[in-house]
Amino acid sequence: MALLAADLGGTKLALAIFSEQGEILFEERVALGNRAGEEVGLLIREQFRAVVGRYDISAAGICVPGIYHKTTGRVWAPNIGGWTDYPLQAELEEFLDQIPVCIDSDRACYILGEYWKGAAQGCKDAIYLAVGTGIGAGIMAGGQILRGGHDIAGAIGWMALERPFHPRFAPAGCFEGYASGTGMALHVQKLMEENVKYNGALRQGSRAEDVFKAYETGDEIAVQVINNCIELWGMAMANLVSLFDPEKIILGGGVFGPAVTFIPQMVAEASKWAQPVSMKLVQVEASMLQDKAGLYGAGMLAQKAKQETGV
Amino acid sequence: MALLAADLGGTKLALAIFSEQGEILFEERVALGNRAGEEVGLLIREQFRAVVGRYDISAAGICVPGIYHKTTGRVWAPNIGGWTDYPLQAELEEFLDQIPVCIDSDRACYILGEYWKGAAQGCKDAIYLAVGTGIGAGIMAGGQILRGGHDIAGAIGWMALERPFHPRFAPAGCFEGYASGTGMALHVQKLMEENVKYNGALRQGSRAEDVFKAYETGDEIAVQVINNCIELWGMAMANLVSLFDPEKIILGGGVFGPAVTFIPQMVAEASKWAQPVSMKLVQVEASMLQDKAGLYGAGMLAQKAKQETGV
Repeated sequence: MALLAADLGGTKLALAIFSEQGEILFEERVALGNRAGEEVGLLIREQFRAVVGRYDISAAGICVPGIYHKTTGRVWAPNIGGWTDYPLQAELEEFLDQIPVCIDSDRACYILGEYWKGAAQGCKDAIYLAVGTGIGAGIMAGGQILRGGHDIAGAIGWMALERPFHPRFAPAGCFEGYASGTGMALHVQKLMEENVKYNGALRQGSRAEDVFKAYETGDEIAVQVINNCIELWGMAMANLVSLFDPEKIILGGGVFGPAVTFIPQMVAEASKWAQPVSMKLVQVEASMLQDKAGLYGAGMLAQKAKQETGV
Repeated sequence: MALLAADLGGTKLALAIFSEQGEILFEERVALGNRAGEEVGLLIREQFRAVVGRYDISAAGICVPGIYHKTTGRVWAPNIGGWTDYPLQAELEEFLDQIPVCIDSDRACYILGEYWKGAAQGCKDAIYLAVGTGIGAGIMAGGQILRGGHDIAGAIGWMALERPFHPRFAPAGCFEGYASGTGMALHVQKLMEENVKYNGALRQGSRAEDVFKAYETGDEIAVQVINNCIELWGMAMANLVSLFDPEKIILGGGVFGPAVTFIPQMVAEASKWAQPVSMKLVQVEASMLQDKAGLYGAGMLAQKAKQETGV
């Protein structure tokens, strides 16, 4: 028996067949192109159809880029057109017939994936801090995924870390507004406007990866942007430590990535702020599964679906 | 059958007998005086002995002012002399013999109490934000008390809310350093030093309750201290909302108390910062049980101990 796992993103659908021990037996990746709404649902079913015949699938798990509402089985995915309240669970249950299926948000899947086969193995209290275009946290507390009262828990991009409130925090939050990939790019833009004499490598439109490259050469704007991020990443880490007292914090997403080289500086910053006993005991590590964390998480969801239905 | 509940504080021991339905049948309160170490353990046993003969006790629960380490059964209570690692569970198990006993931290008890008989009835995701001399949070997530990996979860007084780091945050954290009772008193002191012409009602040594009184008369320092607190309480509330997506946040402790009149301003501040969907859905309320939240929480612990041992 094998597990079917899918990681749906804003631009691609990744799919894997796992053995029940968590080995990847088959893997593929297809671009969403300009699909939206039901076309994305159709793509998932087509890809599933192609593999369901070839493997003896006992359960399926899906990682979605947004919020999964457990009671309704519906998905809100801001980067997929028309997916404001998409009935994915019902659609897949009908299609998969006897095969149980379990869906969850990307942030829940990241920490589940790391728990199953990555850096959080053996943990009951671990957090995946995902910093990419946006910022979110997948939180395992006492062995359970933290969902919240309305399935939106872990929206750490909205964390308040600097006062007073500034209107630029309104679209996506204070932490995300500075310290996500998008936030870093906006910060570059702002600093270039303030510093007309700047003649370094960065330009309007430079992205997070350009900032990391420019930092290597000592570029003044890159240094300012990265130092600002280190402070905020450290403060956010401190707040997770003080509130959740976790065994591990795992850093992943597109920005970690390159930013994992700054873990020692971030830990030093966090150590100033956090509850001191918890801070001494927490381990901070880079994601082991990197861009496959969501896919592994979906595999873990499939295993959960299998156990819950007892197939 | 009845439940024995004790709420141990830094200065008093409160004790109650609950019916299994959660009615208080008997209640007493005794000052710790200058007891420390084993004398406090002895006091608990003496008070227990007096009631155990008079009621048919099925289980006992104790709320302790600090950290309860579940695996060792030991207590760290900073305001009780010699209680750095006190073996309370073992001591009480021996004394109570066949009666099962369950211990937990004050912050866990506050939210358990509100869940049992207060403002969090029917909730699975609710947080008790306790602001008094210090600041802590009792967190229920998915129906479970959040303990963390080392039993220290909920240390929200350490929350980073303003940068850069300042040495005055070192002893007890940024949030607690400003917005606890102690923090408010320190803030008064600092503002008086900065403003030698001030001739209002506050003095060096004024306490939180004096600040609330002076605020009523428009006292300039009191207004500054309270406005500063409203901003920080709001930001902390926002961060709880974004991370935990709770159904309710319940405000208690000595400072809430008087500060509950500022709930509308705090909610307005929090609404600027927090994940907007979660913020619309959360309810913010004053503690229903007030200074009895810990005692009710201990009652709930007793009920839990009873259920777990099946007596």
